[in-house]
Amino acid sequence: MRYSNWWHRSRALLVATAMALALLTPISASAVEGMWPLFDMDQLHFDSLHTMGLAIDPSQIYNAKDGGLAAAVVQVDGGTGAFVSPNGLIITNHHVARSAIQEQSTAQKNYVDDGFLARKLSEELPAVGYYCFVVKSYEDVTKKIRGALKPSLSPKQRHDTLEKLTKGIVSAAEKGRDVRCEVASFDGGLRYMLVTMFRIQDVRIVAVPPEGIGNFGGEIDNWMWPRHTGDYSFLRAYVAPDGHAAEYSDKNVPYHPTAFVPVSDGPLKEGDFSFVMGFPGGTSRFASSYELQDAIDFSYPTSIRYRRALIDIMDQAGQRDPEVAVRVSDRIAELANYLKNFEGMLTGMSKAHTLETRRLREADLQKTVNADPKLAKNYGNTLAGLSALYADHATYRDKSVALGWLSRASQQLGLANRLYKWSLQKTKPDMQREPGYMERNVAAMRRRMKDAQINMVPAVDRQMLEYVLTQAMRLPANQRIAPLDRLVGDTTSAGVPAAVKAFTEKLYANSKVGDVDERLKMFDETHDQLVARKDAFLDLAASLFDEYQTMKEKDDAFSGSAEKLNAELVAACREAHVGPPYPDANGTMRFGYGQVMGCSPADALHFAAFTTLGGVIEKETGVSPFNSPKRLLDVARQHDFGHYLDPMLGDVPVDFLTDHDTTGGSSGSPIFNARGELIGLCFDGNYEAIAGDYDYEQRTNRTINVDSRYILFTLDKVMGASELIKEMTVTPTALP
Amino acid sequence: MRYSNWWHRSRALLVATAMALALLTPISASAVEGMWPLFDMDQLHFDSLHTMGLAIDPSQIYNAKDGGLAAAVVQVDGGTGAFVSPNGLIITNHHVARSAIQEQSTAQKNYVDDGFLARKLSEELPAVGYYCFVVKSYEDVTKKIRGALKPSLSPKQRHDTLEKLTKGIVSAAEKGRDVRCEVASFDGGLRYMLVTMFRIQDVRIVAVPPEGIGNFGGEIDNWMWPRHTGDYSFLRAYVAPDGHAAEYSDKNVPYHPTAFVPVSDGPLKEGDFSFVMGFPGGTSRFASSYELQDAIDFSYPTSIRYRRALIDIMDQAGQRDPEVAVRVSDRIAELANYLKNFEGMLTGMSKAHTLETRRLREADLQKTVNADPKLAKNYGNTLAGLSALYADHATYRDKSVALGWLSRASQQLGLANRLYKWSLQKTKPDMQREPGYMERNVAAMRRRMKDAQINMVPAVDRQMLEYVLTQAMRLPANQRIAPLDRLVGDTTSAGVPAAVKAFTEKLYANSKVGDVDERLKMFDETHDQLVARKDAFLDLAASLFDEYQTMKEKDDAFSGSAEKLNAELVAACREAHVGPPYPDANGTMRFGYGQVMGCSPADALHFAAFTTLGGVIEKETGVSPFNSPKRLLDVARQHDFGHYLDPMLGDVPVDFLTDHDTTGGSSGSPIFNARGELIGLCFDGNYEAIAGDYDYEQRTNRTINVDSRYILFTLDKVMGASELIKEMTVTPTALP
Repeated sequence: MRYSNWWHRSRALLVATAMALALLTPISASAVEGMWPLFDMDQLHFDSLHTMGLAIDPSQIYNAKDGGLAAAVVQVDGGTGAFVSPNGLIITNHHVARSAIQEQSTAQKNYVDDGFLARKLSEELPAVGYYCFVVKSYEDVTKKIRGALKPSLSPKQRHDTLEKLTKGIVSAAEKGRDVRCEVASFDGGLRYMLVTMFRIQDVRIVAVPPEGIGNFGGEIDNWMWPRHTGDYSFLRAYVAPDGHAAEYSDKNVPYHPTAFVPVSDGPLKEGDFSFVMGFPGGTSRFASSYELQDAIDFSYPTSIRYRRALIDIMDQAGQRDPEVAVRVSDRIAELANYLKNFEGMLTGMSKAHTLETRRLREADLQKTVNADPKLAKNYGNTLAGLSALYADHATYRDKSVALGWLSRASQQLGLANRLYKWSLQKTKPDMQREPGYMERNVAAMRRRMKDAQINMVPAVDRQMLEYVLTQAMRLPANQRIAPLDRLVGDTTSAGVPAAVKAFTEKLYANSKVGDVDERLKMFDETHDQLVARKDAFLDLAASLFDEYQTMKEKDDAFSGSAEKLNAELVAACREAHVGPPYPDANGTMRFGYGQVMGCSPADALHFAAFTTLGGVIEKETGVSPFNSPKRLLDVARQHDFGHYLDPMLGDVPVDFLTDHDTTGGSSGSPIFNARGELIGLCFDGNYEAIAGDYDYEQRTNRTINVDSRYILFTLDKVMGASELIKEMTVTPTALP
Repeated sequence: MRYSNWWHRSRALLVATAMALALLTPISASAVEGMWPLFDMDQLHFDSLHTMGLAIDPSQIYNAKDGGLAAAVVQVDGGTGAFVSPNGLIITNHHVARSAIQEQSTAQKNYVDDGFLARKLSEELPAVGYYCFVVKSYEDVTKKIRGALKPSLSPKQRHDTLEKLTKGIVSAAEKGRDVRCEVASFDGGLRYMLVTMFRIQDVRIVAVPPEGIGNFGGEIDNWMWPRHTGDYSFLRAYVAPDGHAAEYSDKNVPYHPTAFVPVSDGPLKEGDFSFVMGFPGGTSRFASSYELQDAIDFSYPTSIRYRRALIDIMDQAGQRDPEVAVRVSDRIAELANYLKNFEGMLTGMSKAHTLETRRLREADLQKTVNADPKLAKNYGNTLAGLSALYADHATYRDKSVALGWLSRASQQLGLANRLYKWSLQKTKPDMQREPGYMERNVAAMRRRMKDAQINMVPAVDRQMLEYVLTQAMRLPANQRIAPLDRLVGDTTSAGVPAAVKAFTEKLYANSKVGDVDERLKMFDETHDQLVARKDAFLDLAASLFDEYQTMKEKDDAFSGSAEKLNAELVAACREAHVGPPYPDANGTMRFGYGQVMGCSPADALHFAAFTTLGGVIEKETGVSPFNSPKRLLDVARQHDFGHYLDPMLGDVPVDFLTDHDTTGGSSGSPIFNARGELIGLCFDGNYEAIAGDYDYEQRTNRTINVDSRYILFTLDKVMGASELIKEMTVTPTALP
């Protein structure tokens, strides 16, 4: 999974509230920390960047007029990609394209194992469910929003007002255009930007290397260095002949982007300047110590516990039946990726003393604030407010998490909950619906109703539901889920397991939610029609509905309070010159810079900046995940390196490290050299970097990238993709 | 456990037959591979060693007259140590002394956790069960033995003849002297040496650092680099006032060794020449590909399977009851150490293509042999013979392993088997007994009968016996253990578990073998008295006795054949100039040399040669095994480094790597600088070195040593052991 396109889903389960004051002083370039919004780039000290090696003008990287190189950077399936030809060719990670290629694979044509290459446009396959978003513009809507968020509002009113305003702004901006808009919150709500993106709906698969290259090392090497993964793939964006976005059609034509990135196969070495653009999902560098404490004491350990148990269930089922193994593999990978992430987060935070450092920062802040009457008036109670907010959160968080996992662990209950809610939401005017149920999201929702079938295994679904139900039946007395107490019947600790079993027995025997055709019918039915079905899962959804609604009210109020307090906290930090000068990542496009750089993650241990093809051979076992395609092994043994040989390494480079500041969502981000040529793709961070979401540590945090020369080498020598290479603008010239 | 004092016990479970031609040509010093017998040191090219940096005369290292520095090197509890004062003070590893200090600990005085320091002789504690052996002489007895091993002997006769001759030589040599003698087989039996060692029976504990220094990193860091363990301890050898060896007595006085080693606290850096002396237990560099294949296909995987299962049983029992956890911890550590070792062995052999390389070597050898009529006559059928030998082994190896683990997994059955056999052996004249039952071993055997109580937990013992019994009941049809089939009753795969349970139920209910007092009585009873007890475990031992005897006959015959064929194989290798020039390790003292040297164990990964105190602090968690004593943390935080600070590292050195060729049994080996001063103690090899037992690989195989400066630093600053430091000869001068 690596740096994942899943960040938003996993993050959403942790109480993480995404968090502007225009910066007053330019930032020294010696600090490579920071994921800079493009519209804040003028705050950067470009003189220092030029001193570090940057050889092009900042306006070539980004400008508000034609977008610059940034116009070539796209968001795709929750990750990042970049146009690399005038004909809509997109380069991104293997793991970003993986589910698309899996969807197209059959037992006969196993594109996952064997790789895939379209030799002409007509051979390209639809990447079902994939969208590609090209940023068109940014508009500051802070005044519109913050003007309406009067201090007198209650937390829930604050949340509702914000939601309503946001929906209105988005709806007006999208009206009659084939764009997708979002209002992004920066700095905990100090600043709001309307981001408008062209939404390309027809994305196709052009080339994907075999799994033995694209996912070499698999789960074992995930988050690890040294790494030897060719984590790349090629997609293509299509639009209607008139240039408008359109669903897949054989009449569609390749999209012509405003900009595309030339690809370098020139030399690259440790110390070289480079920069990155992409869509990092979220960081928590302004999060309060109370939020951190909540995460360390509760959210991470609880999530780890659920994930471990659910993975075990799927693993064991997979061991009994290889067909089940295939179906559950995606869900296991998804849970496992962030299991390792969360474990790394806890280890890393403990090692780096993140909580202690944050507390010291807050003590400093409080002191500065107290010393200045104006600051004291505005922010004197902010930290106390956050402390109280999280103390309150502790009174219902176990229940909140249990409700979340009920819907998430069991696909059938999750679908039933959604169907039931949709039947109620659909009768409301669009602007009064919850955002996920607005017309703009209905097509995607229907598609998920259908696609859910791909991974569904009822027996496993039931075991997973039983696990979460058992957890739910063990909630403390003040956090009981009353309808479950009633429906399951026996709440004694000895009686729960049997009662849960009997309950789920009836559920699965009396529901058609697991049947894709029935489910799609349900999706189009009215509320009364749904209820009349007396379907066991829909009935359970109905019973739980009020619980979810009540929890949503609590979450909304929490979110309303957090929005207010976090905005205050960031404002206080800025005014007191405490904490980072850039806003936390929030899924919007960011610019970062740094160098190609190895690191010493621990005493007596040194990571070189580059891995090599020789290292692939060292790891090769012939068994997944260390099973290179035969063609690669042959080429390596024959030393058929062509001009991809790096004379300093004496070998073909594979992956390299940079000190860029990245995180989940950065997957597939293009890495540029000083001249703005693509030298690689970000696909992961090292284990030491995981806790970097809270505090970037230049000594140990590294971004892991696949080298463009390895991409070209394997395209050329292993996949025989000469036409594809020709379509790109490959720039072999050495840097000055 | 690290490089272990356990090598002999663990090795014995793998069919590994330990393997002279006087070397005709001196060996180039550029190859640091090799564990050289001291009496072969004249074969080494000392000119090259001097060029590498050696600053003393070879005769100062070893000479047959007064022993040289080698006279300071001793064998202690299966590991190695060195005298570091004229008053019998011995330096060795923490893990070598650990069970002695554990034996002396109580809940009130926890010397394991807190460490121990005797401030005067009278405070030193007995190291119960510890012997210290000082080599007195070597005598070549090859002619006596090989002269009697006529080619006409059957394999079993060959084994018996060898055993009888060996016993006779040892018995004559030990007669009336306080020495222990052994006949060591070199080069698979091409050469036999009688080794005579002064046996010191009164060994006392002088100083042991807290577990948080001496075993810092524990199982997690075991076999790993970077390492931060202060794996050292100090013992003292005592003898009777007249200089003879004697059991512990308050009249005994410190032993005055012929030589002792000065301790360096001077500078040390990567590239510095160094040498090592110690007692490496065993290597397999002449083992045939058939032996390797047997190990890879069967012995290692089978041992891994048993170890894993038995560790699981003990782990789970320990989780339920902390007191059980303490009791089983030693056995878990013992099994786990070699579990990790065997897994590393398989991984390493697969990575290094050890089997394939050995096969190629043998193909070369066969070609050379076939081309020369004299060689063809002597060795033409050797490899074919080994092939047949291992093919035959495959027909009974599962049963052999099951019988071995029955006696090993269950302490009670192991004790019963030994008691039963002892009751039969004790009636024979000493020279006709099996070596383990000869008078010279009776005291140690009685002590083991008593000490077994320390770790005994009947419920766990039973579970472990049930596991092994279940395995035994699943043996293939041609390898059944008939008495078990009869006693357990049900041999159907469905019926076995319940039948095994019922069988062990009766066993434990009707036996007193688990009672230490009864057991010691049994030890002194006659065969008839034992049988008359109708003790369930003794009855089981009686039922199994013939099975063990039959298996022993098979093993003896195997060993007789192997002795003949392996000697031929080594002779052929030497004559054909194939394979290493030195003999495999066999537990006798060896000399090796090399350099302080980091390494690159894998692509993009580099290990520095030294770790530092800063690295200890990096790993510190406050929780075992990363819990440094407070005093060490304070000293580190105050940067109270004294003159132990290494100016190049900017910190106190902790451990360092050398490219010395070592293995299990080398634990505690003194590491010398060019002037013969002690710069550290070997305590482990890196993970990459494990498979080095089959083939030393200079690029990746490293010995892990604790730096003498860290020993002195912690003695000085943490333990306050200034008297102890004064007793040693510390040489602070810089090397030229």
